[in-house]
Amino acid sequence: MKTADAPVEFYFDFSSPYGYLASELIDDLAAAHGRSVAWRPILLGAVFKATGSQPLVHQPMKGAYALRDFARSARFHGLPFAMPAVFPVATQAAARACYWLQGEDDAAARRLAHALYRAYFIGGRNIGETDTVLAVGEELGVAPARLEAALAEPAVKERLRAETESAIARGVFGSPYFVVDGEPFFGVDRLPQLEKWLKRGGF
Amino acid sequence: MKTADAPVEFYFDFSSPYGYLASELIDDLAAAHGRSVAWRPILLGAVFKATGSQPLVHQPMKGAYALRDFARSARFHGLPFAMPAVFPVATQAAARACYWLQGEDDAAARRLAHALYRAYFIGGRNIGETDTVLAVGEELGVAPARLEAALAEPAVKERLRAETESAIARGVFGSPYFVVDGEPFFGVDRLPQLEKWLKRGGF
Repeated sequence: MKTADAPVEFYFDFSSPYGYLASELIDDLAAAHGRSVAWRPILLGAVFKATGSQPLVHQPMKGAYALRDFARSARFHGLPFAMPAVFPVATQAAARACYWLQGEDDAAARRLAHALYRAYFIGGRNIGETDTVLAVGEELGVAPARLEAALAEPAVKERLRAETESAIARGVFGSPYFVVDGEPFFGVDRLPQLEKWLKRGGF
Repeated sequence: MKTADAPVEFYFDFSSPYGYLASELIDDLAAAHGRSVAWRPILLGAVFKATGSQPLVHQPMKGAYALRDFARSARFHGLPFAMPAVFPVATQAAARACYWLQGEDDAAARRLAHALYRAYFIGGRNIGETDTVLAVGEELGVAPARLEAALAEPAVKERLRAETESAIARGVFGSPYFVVDGEPFFGVDRLPQLEKWLKRGGF
């Protein structure tokens, strides 16, 4: 079942703290084993409807632990992190911007994804607002008028809907969620297992 | 807040696969940093009532992933593992046996805890049945009649009830769950963070 050069599939929601941590680690990890990464933003709200779940921070007892663990996990990995004042946020605009730009220039889409995650989880900017997504794009040289038009395109909206639906059909139940040669890994804390898998072609 | 020689507190349910994996790793990890481990079996059923949760394997989508992840995590750590045919099981008898023996001989209680976990997650023996707990105890030299009488003692029953209640009051919401100098760590996948915490006295 192993496909030598298949990309690591990386599912995430732009409002997911563990997704942000993973976004800072996965490209280097994959590259060290000759793999690229396919970045696939999805909507966790739709996923939670399918699983009957809810955001971690809203769950009894787990919520308080999660807030502590987000910050500690960031320190563990040496990554900057500040819990945003508004959390979680809707991530349709961020995800659509990412998919649209992938169609134009994959490297630029990667830079935009990093910039959006960092704007939210380092800078505390509300990427749930379209204006913030446009502003972050503009800082990278994406004309706001072009991006705003793209966000309203039916094909772009449909792409995000289809990716989320396809992710759910594959069993994706949270963020970050990775698939390597058909093998699923959930959570930034599974990156050591994912790395061993890449190194050995399974274990 | 750091207490130099305080034991690592290890909360677990005898029916928890990740608890079993942690049980094989935590003593050596703590000892490498001059710490002992206080083993505290609890009843996840009571915990799940408090959190409104349910066993992982019963959760939509997460269940299938969990079964795969249990076995893969065991391989990752180089530990033997076979998913028991009967799962989960009630663990009152196992937990009570462990607390009773702690009162007599802590090292023997540790050996019993390992033997019970291994009987279940390697040998597939149903430790939810009191007879199995008595048999596992007998294999370690604990007279079945003495253990059977101990399991019926009100003080032993109360100890388990009180430990579970105290765990919930502290925020324990799953298994394994560790507390090091007041810092909580949930999951066998947090052992690398726990180790860094022990090494540096926090990070």
